[in-house]
Amino acid sequence: MIVYIDGKYVKEEDASVSVNDRAYVLGDGVYEGFRVYNNKIFKYEEHKVRFQRSLDELRIKHVIKNEIQDVYEALKKANGYENEEMFYYMHITRGKAPRIHAFPEKDTPIGIYAFLMPKALNIQKYNEGISVCTVPDNRWARCDIKCISLVANCLANQIAVDNDCSEALFVHDGVITEGTRTNVCFVKNNEVYTHAKTNRILAGVTRNTLVELCEENGITVHEFPLTTDKLEEIDEAFLTGTTEELTPITLIDGKKVGSGEVGSLTKKLQKIFKDEVNRYSF
Amino acid sequence: MIVYIDGKYVKEEDASVSVNDRAYVLGDGVYEGFRVYNNKIFKYEEHKVRFQRSLDELRIKHVIKNEIQDVYEALKKANGYENEEMFYYMHITRGKAPRIHAFPEKDTPIGIYAFLMPKALNIQKYNEGISVCTVPDNRWARCDIKCISLVANCLANQIAVDNDCSEALFVHDGVITEGTRTNVCFVKNNEVYTHAKTNRILAGVTRNTLVELCEENGITVHEFPLTTDKLEEIDEAFLTGTTEELTPITLIDGKKVGSGEVGSLTKKLQKIFKDEVNRYSF
Repeated sequence: MIVYIDGKYVKEEDASVSVNDRAYVLGDGVYEGFRVYNNKIFKYEEHKVRFQRSLDELRIKHVIKNEIQDVYEALKKANGYENEEMFYYMHITRGKAPRIHAFPEKDTPIGIYAFLMPKALNIQKYNEGISVCTVPDNRWARCDIKCISLVANCLANQIAVDNDCSEALFVHDGVITEGTRTNVCFVKNNEVYTHAKTNRILAGVTRNTLVELCEENGITVHEFPLTTDKLEEIDEAFLTGTTEELTPITLIDGKKVGSGEVGSLTKKLQKIFKDEVNRYSF
Repeated sequence: MIVYIDGKYVKEEDASVSVNDRAYVLGDGVYEGFRVYNNKIFKYEEHKVRFQRSLDELRIKHVIKNEIQDVYEALKKANGYENEEMFYYMHITRGKAPRIHAFPEKDTPIGIYAFLMPKALNIQKYNEGISVCTVPDNRWARCDIKCISLVANCLANQIAVDNDCSEALFVHDGVITEGTRTNVCFVKNNEVYTHAKTNRILAGVTRNTLVELCEENGITVHEFPLTTDKLEEIDEAFLTGTTEELTPITLIDGKKVGSGEVGSLTKKLQKIFKDEVNRYSF
């Protein structure tokens, strides 16, 4: 695979970065993950706005212009990708400087790393649903910034793997906030519940698109905290994510969600979302 | 400067690491900062124990043997350092693997980066004291792990710089926990108060040494949370840190600590600590 690093397109195995990059020593950067359908970055504008917001919140002085599109086009060409569904990753770091916590005194060029790889939706999980577990939310207080200081997410995601689960859901002060790399929605009486866009979640592009689509389709969405004691009462649950789209959850901590089958509103929303993908991308 | 990266000793400007290193894309690693006096790593054993604990808590499968000492010796020789006071940094990462949150499926060799540089105590600050500011503690819930996902510390430290302060003190639920790269102690009626060794602080080697020295010298230490409303009542304050030793704080958020002069117990403890440095290192 050919990847992009600081202005160069190189083989993944040859791609390297200075040890002084603040991403490497301080986790000091922000990222985006994009989905590509039909050679088009899905919801490009929404991702770009969020990327810029993450930069601004970390006070990384950089205004995104065309680099997301330009690097994507070049990576697609360099790797000879045709028409696959793909995952596109880009991160921007505060650049290279001797290691101190405070920002570099002089303006330092940012660092950029990006890769593009074929990645299809996991159809089995999409159709049959997944198991998830709950984990304590040990993350920092600015989960709304898509930052690469991700160790809390890594540890939580590994707990999911250890428990043969596809994802872990964070519980913060008794509230289920989101997954380690996804958002989560619950259904009760054919109405959708998902966490509000606060500092405790990274409001995903898929999540936000879904909320809009629900409103357009007359489905009530509550941006409301679901506490763990209410888990037994819900009828359906699903993850939203760039790679997952809407993936049903059928087991939480080993207990069935509702009947334990993929819910009917979840299926309906999957179709509504697919229609949006097709409308946007094809 | 010659630095160490993954088995090689190279010039700092040539030192690079794979973009697949989990430190670079996920902040997934742990570190230690050591002080060197008289060609000897101060409190080597204590640092080593803490380094191993950080690895264990992050579930990075590696047992530290002699690499801290071996790399130190090689860096000292390669750089031609003689008898300076130095700062020695080493971090260990979960290694190189395609970017996913969960740990690599196969056992992957860890990554190690280290540098050694002359760094003397800032005598002016040490003698005259410093200004600090308070900032919200936005960090994750495992501040007891010395992890390189440090973006919250970077942002807080920059707020200190913006306010012409030498350090920022984190406030968590109304309690002053510690600095962005130091611990903090307060003095009231010739007794010392510092935060207990919980998940909210990284219990520094200097802090722990100080607590022992206080006990040996008949000075009462309370491991007790200082709430911000009590700041006006304290007589003295000081930071502890590998680079700072015991550095007095004379201003907090622009308000004088006690008389605004360096406190008498602080001076006494500085001397007691220096005696310990001399006893250990010379």
